[in-house]
Amino acid sequence: MIKAGIVGATGYAGAELVRLLAGHSDAEVIWYGSKSYVGEDFASIYKNARGFTDAACRADDIEKMAEECDVIFTATPQGYLGSVLTEDILKKVKVIDLSADYRLSDIPTYEKWYGIEHKSPELVKQAVYGLCELHREKIRDARLVANPGCYTTCSILTAYPLVAEGLIDPDTLIVDAASGTSGAGRGAKVPNLFCEVNENMKPYGVTNHRHTPEIEQELSLAAGRRVIINFTPHLAPMNRGILATEYASLVPTADGTYPDTDAVMAAYEKYYGKEYFIRVLEPGQMPETRWVEGSNFVDIGFIIDDRTKRVIMVGAIDNLVKGAAGQAVQNMNLIFGLDEKTGLTGMPVFP
Amino acid sequence: MIKAGIVGATGYAGAELVRLLAGHSDAEVIWYGSKSYVGEDFASIYKNARGFTDAACRADDIEKMAEECDVIFTATPQGYLGSVLTEDILKKVKVIDLSADYRLSDIPTYEKWYGIEHKSPELVKQAVYGLCELHREKIRDARLVANPGCYTTCSILTAYPLVAEGLIDPDTLIVDAASGTSGAGRGAKVPNLFCEVNENMKPYGVTNHRHTPEIEQELSLAAGRRVIINFTPHLAPMNRGILATEYASLVPTADGTYPDTDAVMAAYEKYYGKEYFIRVLEPGQMPETRWVEGSNFVDIGFIIDDRTKRVIMVGAIDNLVKGAAGQAVQNMNLIFGLDEKTGLTGMPVFP
Amino acid sequence: MIKAGIVGATGYAGAELVRLLAGHSDAEVIWYGSKSYVGEDFASIYKNARGFTDAACRADDIEKMAEECDVIFTATPQGYLGSVLTEDILKKVKVIDLSADYRLSDIPTYEKWYGIEHKSPELVKQAVYGLCELHREKIRDARLVANPGCYTTCSILTAYPLVAEGLIDPDTLIVDAASGTSGAGRGAKVPNLFCEVNENMKPYGVTNHRHTPEIEQELSLAAGRRVIINFTPHLAPMNRGILATEYASLVPTADGTYPDTDAVMAAYEKYYGKEYFIRVLEPGQMPETRWVEGSNFVDIGFIIDDRTKRVIMVGAIDNLVKGAAGQAVQNMNLIFGLDEKTGLTGMPVFP
Amino acid sequence: MIKAGIVGATGYAGAELVRLLAGHSDAEVIWYGSKSYVGEDFASIYKNARGFTDAACRADDIEKMAEECDVIFTATPQGYLGSVLTEDILKKVKVIDLSADYRLSDIPTYEKWYGIEHKSPELVKQAVYGLCELHREKIRDARLVANPGCYTTCSILTAYPLVAEGLIDPDTLIVDAASGTSGAGRGAKVPNLFCEVNENMKPYGVTNHRHTPEIEQELSLAAGRRVIINFTPHLAPMNRGILATEYASLVPTADGTYPDTDAVMAAYEKYYGKEYFIRVLEPGQMPETRWVEGSNFVDIGFIIDDRTKRVIMVGAIDNLVKGAAGQAVQNMNLIFGLDEKTGLTGMPVFP
Repeated sequence: MIKAGIVGATGYAGAELVRLLAGHSDAEVIWYGSKSYVGEDFASIYKNARGFTDAACRADDIEKMAEECDVIFTATPQGYLGSVLTEDILKKVKVIDLSADYRLSDIPTYEKWYGIEHKSPELVKQAVYGLCELHREKIRDARLVANPGCYTTCSILTAYPLVAEGLIDPDTLIVDAASGTSGAGRGAKVPNLFCEVNENMKPYGVTNHRHTPEIEQELSLAAGRRVIINFTPHLAPMNRGILATEYASLVPTADGTYPDTDAVMAAYEKYYGKEYFIRVLEPGQMPETRWVEGSNFVDIGFIIDDRTKRVIMVGAIDNLVKGAAGQAVQNMNLIFGLDEKTGLTGMPVFP
Repeated sequence: MIKAGIVGATGYAGAELVRLLAGHSDAEVIWYGSKSYVGEDFASIYKNARGFTDAACRADDIEKMAEECDVIFTATPQGYLGSVLTEDILKKVKVIDLSADYRLSDIPTYEKWYGIEHKSPELVKQAVYGLCELHREKIRDARLVANPGCYTTCSILTAYPLVAEGLIDPDTLIVDAASGTSGAGRGAKVPNLFCEVNENMKPYGVTNHRHTPEIEQELSLAAGRRVIINFTPHLAPMNRGILATEYASLVPTADGTYPDTDAVMAAYEKYYGKEYFIRVLEPGQMPETRWVEGSNFVDIGFIIDDRTKRVIMVGAIDNLVKGAAGQAVQNMNLIFGLDEKTGLTGMPVFP
Repeated sequence: MIKAGIVGATGYAGAELVRLLAGHSDAEVIWYGSKSYVGEDFASIYKNARGFTDAACRADDIEKMAEECDVIFTATPQGYLGSVLTEDILKKVKVIDLSADYRLSDIPTYEKWYGIEHKSPELVKQAVYGLCELHREKIRDARLVANPGCYTTCSILTAYPLVAEGLIDPDTLIVDAASGTSGAGRGAKVPNLFCEVNENMKPYGVTNHRHTPEIEQELSLAAGRRVIINFTPHLAPMNRGILATEYASLVPTADGTYPDTDAVMAAYEKYYGKEYFIRVLEPGQMPETRWVEGSNFVDIGFIIDDRTKRVIMVGAIDNLVKGAAGQAVQNMNLIFGLDEKTGLTGMPVFP
Repeated sequence: MIKAGIVGATGYAGAELVRLLAGHSDAEVIWYGSKSYVGEDFASIYKNARGFTDAACRADDIEKMAEECDVIFTATPQGYLGSVLTEDILKKVKVIDLSADYRLSDIPTYEKWYGIEHKSPELVKQAVYGLCELHREKIRDARLVANPGCYTTCSILTAYPLVAEGLIDPDTLIVDAASGTSGAGRGAKVPNLFCEVNENMKPYGVTNHRHTPEIEQELSLAAGRRVIINFTPHLAPMNRGILATEYASLVPTADGTYPDTDAVMAAYEKYYGKEYFIRVLEPGQMPETRWVEGSNFVDIGFIIDDRTKRVIMVGAIDNLVKGAAGQAVQNMNLIFGLDEKTGLTGMPVFP
């Protein structure tokens, strides 16, 4: 049994890790870390866990956790892990970080978008960006995995094959996305109250959302050159789910014709044909968040607009699963040599 | 592998059976029965099932199903199974009926409350009422199980021990309940449109809801005499969940004192102390539907009101799981000699 | 023009007062009191008010307000007004208190249920309980009106005529109610976050909710004797609306028969036949919160259960309007001799 | 008093007309037209109208309505009005059409996107496109007004000044929008059931939504040349509201610099500085649907992205008010020489 510790187990992503690991055949949570609820039973806070654990929450002490655990998941605010992680800890334990501290390989970019100084820049180099479908082999050997953001997972995977195959002009890429409110975390803030969110659609972080450079970093890898995009997130009145609607101009081929549906589908097939967690829909079909709720799937669809020579790509994930805890478990499975799907094969829950 | 057929697989309860059985180690669905979608891929209707099955829907032909299946689940409108079920079918296959046709042992009561003639009254006698925690032993030997209604499962289990132990006066019992909208089914009806349900609480079936005699039947068994109650359901703007708030006057003991918290808790412990799926909460704690969502659990809490000498009991279930498909799987497990929990051990999904 | 000041204008009830008074022909808000947002534009917090006011929020200084205003509405936490109100203030200005400080005429009852000492018990006597349909004449002459609670307005009005006419036994009265989340206020608390409320029904304050003695006080007046009831509120996943489902045993008449539908309807007609804001539904019709949303109406329906000899009464209001700000305006209209309906005649908003 | 008839009064847009006209000082509904509910009381279907009208629904007989009414609103499926409207009717009565039949001046475009033959093409020429802020003067003299679509009202108004002033390249314009579910109408269809919409975001009509040519028609007028855009609508789990997020590349001026915030704001001020119903937000502020709910306002905000030289414009309306019934009343006010705001000055309802 893999012994897992969770720093920040009482946030939504942390609690989703608890849920997923409760159904995992080869791992168990032995340390429910929390800042606010030390000493309280985890199942008294997340009462869905009644009967699954009688453990109390413990302090978020990463050094002690490193002694007892095989893997530590950190579901913490930005800057926390960056300030406490050391080479010494990484010698003892695998770390899968759900925060952004090690996602961006370029430290000035991190410091600019997050507005904080990076306290352990020397560790960034060894961190592997944990988007499993893109970096699987490196993840297997990683000690430190930077689990991707929720919007980024969805946005990158939806566009990646078309960028990589040169079918679209990445400079024209626009990502317009909506997220369920669990993505905003469990902090007690007025904007996240029921009455403020319900019956409302609102944009936020327009032109400056922190997931932007992360999307750009990975699509730049795909394009082989620097990519700059527009990304606009919106808060939707639902608990879970991210839908990313992406627009890009098709690149004409040498003979002046534009890639057609077959060409686009072939690109998706090339990259995702063997991926269990990516379900590329038949041409014309569009994903919806309800069809992935509670699961680690990414549903992707696309339509070509002959009038504008653009392709509209749409991706859907559950922000707490493939966008956070599920991908973290997938990363753990890779690191520990397990079947990548272990603990993640439940059918999405609908309605 | 138990071969399962589902009549009405494309309703919400039927589709939930598909989801639960997809995670069941010893059973598989081999017949996705449907009235409206014959020939269409099940996963094209319930797109959460993409990648889990490529089967097409077949006609609801219970006789042919009996040849191919070990168990048939019928998630159909009232009156359907009653009109097609025969002794011959029951010789070949186990039948778990999610409709009301065999729940009421008294046929005139059925015909009065449902307003239809019972077409196979001779089969009612051998049907076992499939509330597992109350009739476990009989279910093991049953050929025909009448899977309880959603409201009834929650309402009965919440009050049963207190009625059986004589702690409350059953004539004073009032059940006030709210249900998520999946309980209304997937029929295209104006009252179930999003805009009609959202931002609304409404009572319905006041004094004449069909689950009333079913609750009375079981509580009469508990009381050892005829029990008549008030039951009022409400439609709540959410997908899943039933919350039943129940009121009853405590019965004073010989010395004129009233049962206290310990006495009530002892009654619950006596009946449910060993039940995996029933989580009796500590005194003063109240259940909420979110803590059981997606699971087969029944959460029960209570508070005694010293001022009025009443006890307020509250129960919560997921109407599609313990209130329908989950309990049906639990019944199947019992009939086929499996561990009762097989396929039903997932932690509730929150948020 | 009546000059109105609002203490606590940036809470949900306060902001609803702003909305209603913006449509009032004879009153205007001249003081937007706030604790947290002093100096900020009201319309920068409640952006629906953009274009309606460019006033900034001012401190909650009730003494200064008394100099400038004709009427002060206090939408504040319990205990606040009780600690600052004086005879001197009441000589200068009318006060309509949306908190509970002056609702209960019995001070020990207040102190027991609210757990705080009453700081101005001498003023309680002159406060008029502002349930307009019951105390209209006294309100006209009041200097201090205790605006009723949201649950209480709905619960009392629904049962009042039947209690007053002796048709039901008040000792058997059970009030089971659900409220939209705006009733919980705009404080930043985890239990009121979107993800905690959405997809959930939960009971709270079971046996000890503070609106209980308020309901009992008024129904005791109706009954002419001390009435003790059970009241159970629930939080529903919607913004606005209260639905109260009430149960009581019918009292047989001298000849042993029970009151019938006509008798019950006659009682409602007697008390509410001329009330604009109370819409008694035809027998068998049930109210729903959506039909009163945004309005000052109270919809009331009932059904008699011949089996149990109980009547089930159901009332629906908008908790922010008839349950708070709308009734406060209705009280203001009465005090200032205006048509009681002024500013309150908008049709409910659906969907 | 203007006598108004409504064809399709029992749909959501028709019923919103009833609500708005109930608060209108100079108009009254004298004909509640319906297809499905002839003979039934309007207030028995839309129970929010209880106490406001006791009229029964009448057949949708436009010829008879023309005899009795001063204005007819048609809130009907596409193709209906086109097949029954005649010059003779227009001589007797003003017609404000909430369907699409007369919105597109180019008949082949109508027939292509709507897939139906236009039955009265000769009347198209005299129809005025009823986007009040753009065509106010023509509307005053119109006999037939084509009330704009909900998405189109929001999408056009948000981009219009920037297109008209040449600040953005219209060929780069992408409109990504979300709508509340009332926009889907009150038809009994499975995709609009509560459980299908709740907890879901879905795109639909991608590349082929019928509002596309309508947006293009008006923005082509602004640009002085043919404009082709991408428009992607999404269904959001809420009752009301449209949010349109629009992207376009800024056009550099002669000196190679790009329009800045002041330049964009100046364009909005130029077109909307005197418009009551358009609230242009301060730079950096973004609209949200909750701030316009129940009202005729259009909130517009924008942000320039220096990195990509694009401007992101966001508009928000209530789809049933400014997107349908409210704008129809605004058009009626213009035609009958009333103050344009009559009956439309209520503050938006929040929460």
